[in-house]
Amino acid sequence: MIRTPYLLFLGDAHDNLAAKVAQGIKDWNPDSVVGQFRMEGCNADVGAPDMSLQEAYDKGARTLVVGVANRGGVISDAWLRVLAEAMEIGFDLASGLHNLLRDEKLLKATSARTGATLHDVRIPTVAYPIANGVKRTGKRCLAIGTDCSVGKMYTGLAMDAEMQKRGMKSTFRPTGQTGILITGKGVPLDAVVADFMAGAVEWLTPDAEADHWDHIEGQGSLWHVSYSGVTMALIHGGQPDALILAHEPTRTHMRGLPGFGLPKLEELRDMALPLARIANPACVVAGVSVNTKALGDDEALALCAEIEDRMGLPTVDPYRHGAARLVDALSVI
Amino acid sequence: MIRTPYLLFLGDAHDNLAAKVAQGIKDWNPDSVVGQFRMEGCNADVGAPDMSLQEAYDKGARTLVVGVANRGGVISDAWLRVLAEAMEIGFDLASGLHNLLRDEKLLKATSARTGATLHDVRIPTVAYPIANGVKRTGKRCLAIGTDCSVGKMYTGLAMDAEMQKRGMKSTFRPTGQTGILITGKGVPLDAVVADFMAGAVEWLTPDAEADHWDHIEGQGSLWHVSYSGVTMALIHGGQPDALILAHEPTRTHMRGLPGFGLPKLEELRDMALPLARIANPACVVAGVSVNTKALGDDEALALCAEIEDRMGLPTVDPYRHGAARLVDALSVI
Repeated sequence: MIRTPYLLFLGDAHDNLAAKVAQGIKDWNPDSVVGQFRMEGCNADVGAPDMSLQEAYDKGARTLVVGVANRGGVISDAWLRVLAEAMEIGFDLASGLHNLLRDEKLLKATSARTGATLHDVRIPTVAYPIANGVKRTGKRCLAIGTDCSVGKMYTGLAMDAEMQKRGMKSTFRPTGQTGILITGKGVPLDAVVADFMAGAVEWLTPDAEADHWDHIEGQGSLWHVSYSGVTMALIHGGQPDALILAHEPTRTHMRGLPGFGLPKLEELRDMALPLARIANPACVVAGVSVNTKALGDDEALALCAEIEDRMGLPTVDPYRHGAARLVDALSVI
Repeated sequence: MIRTPYLLFLGDAHDNLAAKVAQGIKDWNPDSVVGQFRMEGCNADVGAPDMSLQEAYDKGARTLVVGVANRGGVISDAWLRVLAEAMEIGFDLASGLHNLLRDEKLLKATSARTGATLHDVRIPTVAYPIANGVKRTGKRCLAIGTDCSVGKMYTGLAMDAEMQKRGMKSTFRPTGQTGILITGKGVPLDAVVADFMAGAVEWLTPDAEADHWDHIEGQGSLWHVSYSGVTMALIHGGQPDALILAHEPTRTHMRGLPGFGLPKLEELRDMALPLARIANPACVVAGVSVNTKALGDDEALALCAEIEDRMGLPTVDPYRHGAARLVDALSVI
C-alpha cells in the first residue's frame, strides 16, 4: 500500500495530456490529493492547489506521486533534485514511469539514507499464482475495448463510484499504473510474466460477498495485436459476469498500428462473449461505454442513442452522462 | 546458442514420462545426441547409448542437458554433484527446469571457476520489442490446440521435418523449453513479460523468403483459462498464414482444470480463425493433427477419417501417420 494523502508532481509537463496520470488521481480519488507541485515551465494544471514540498508535507501529504510522463524516457536532473528533496522532508515516492525510481542512483541512495519508500508501480511485487479457473463468489464486471485507450479505466471507475453512491458493495480493481496510483494497490498486469497473467487477475479479484461487484480495469483489446494476450488473460482470469463494450468513435486505426482498422461493436461482442463464457458460462454483455470527448453534446447523445438502438444495450458516455444506466444493467444480473 | 552435441542427463527419473524433454531431443534432433547419462535408480531410457561423463566428452559432447523433471522443484544433492563434475570435465550445462541452475551455489561457483556456461532456457535473454503488427515476408504455420499438451510441438516438428525431407525451405521456431533444447534457440514464451509476448513472437519469426515456412511452436489453448493469453499472443504475434487444429481425443477435461470441458474442433476453428485474421486476413485452417497415442491402429485411422469427413480438412496423427498430408495442404497456400 502507498501512504496517502498525495502531493502530485507535475514536473515541467508541457501540457495536460502529459499529466494525465495526475489528472486521473485528482478526478477519481480527490480525497487523496493535498495539492500539486509544478516546476518552472509546467503547462499542466490538474486543478489542485499549488504547493511547495514542505507546505504539502505540513498539510499531511506523505507520498509524492510522479503523475506525469517524462520526455524520452529519462528522469531529468531537475526532476531528480525535487524528488530527492521530497524524501529529505519525509515523503515516500510513487511512480508509474517505465524508467524506474530505483534505477536512479541519487534516489536509491536518498531512500536508503532517509528510510523513504520508492514505489515503482509498474513492477509486480507479488509472486502471483497460475490461474486455476475455480469459480469465485461475488460478481465481476470487465470493460473490453474496440481499441486500447478508449476509456475502459474511466468506465470501471465511474461504475464503481455510482455503486458507492447507491450504497452498493463494489471495488475498483486496477490493472495499470494510473489505477494503482488512484487506489494505492492493484496488479501492473502488463509487467507480469506470461504464465501468471490470468493468475494475477484471479488474485486481484478474490472471493467476495454474493452481491459485491468488482470492476476490473481492462487493458488492451482483442483487436490490438500488441496486447491482445493481456486482454485475453483479463477475460479468463477475471471470469466476468458482465462485459461492457468500450469504444471511441473517432479513432481511424488501432492505436499505434496504422493499417489495422477497429472492429464494429457487434464484432467485439460476438468475439468476446464466447471467449468470456469459457471461464464463466453465465457472462452477459451488459452495456456500451462510448468515449465522446471529441464530440459535441448533441452529437454525443445522438451517437449513444444510435448505438443503443442498434445493439439493444444501454449506451452512455459514463464520464459525460454518468454511469447510472450501466449500473442499472448490472443490478439485474 | 547452446553448444552441441549433447549428453542427455536423465538423473534418477522414475519413468520415461519424467524424461520427456530428453526423449524429445532424442526423437527430433538425434544428430545432436552423443548419449545418455543415468544415475542409480533411473527407470527412464530414451534409447541413446549409456555413457559416463568423461566418455561422452571424449566423444565430442559439449553440453550436459538436464532432460528430466525433478521432484518437488528441488535439484537434489546427488544431481548437483554430477552437474558440477560435468563442468569440471569441460561441459556446459543446459536446463529447462523451473528452479534455475544459476540459483544453485555449487553450480554458480563451479561455472565461475571453470568458465562453463549455465543455460537456463526458461529465462529470456533478449529484450524483446513490443509487437508492431507489420506484415512479414515468408509463410508461417501455427498449431493451436483444444487443450494444452495435445501434440502441438510434435506437429510443428513433424511438419518441419517433412518439409526438410522434400527440400522445401522451413524452420521450426520453438516457444518452450523442450523445443529450445531441441534446436538450441528460441523464445521461452511463458516467461516473457506480458507487454512483450507478441513482440517476442514477431522477433522469433522474422522476414523470410516468400516460399519459406516457419513452424511456430504453439502454447496453451484458447480454452485453457490459465494460459490463453499466451496462445493469443502467438496467434497475433505469429500472424500465421495457416492454422493446424491439434486435438487429443481421450482427454476428459482441460489439463489441470477439472470442470472445464474441451471444445469441439469446430468451436476451436470458429473461434481461432477470426482472431487470426485480425493479424493476417489471409489465414486459413489447413488441417487437423490428432494425437492418437491412446488408440489402437484401426481406431486411430477411423477417428482421423471421421474428423476429416466432418471438418473437410486433411486429418492425421503426424507422429503415427507422418505429416505429408499436412505439408501438402500448406504447399498450395
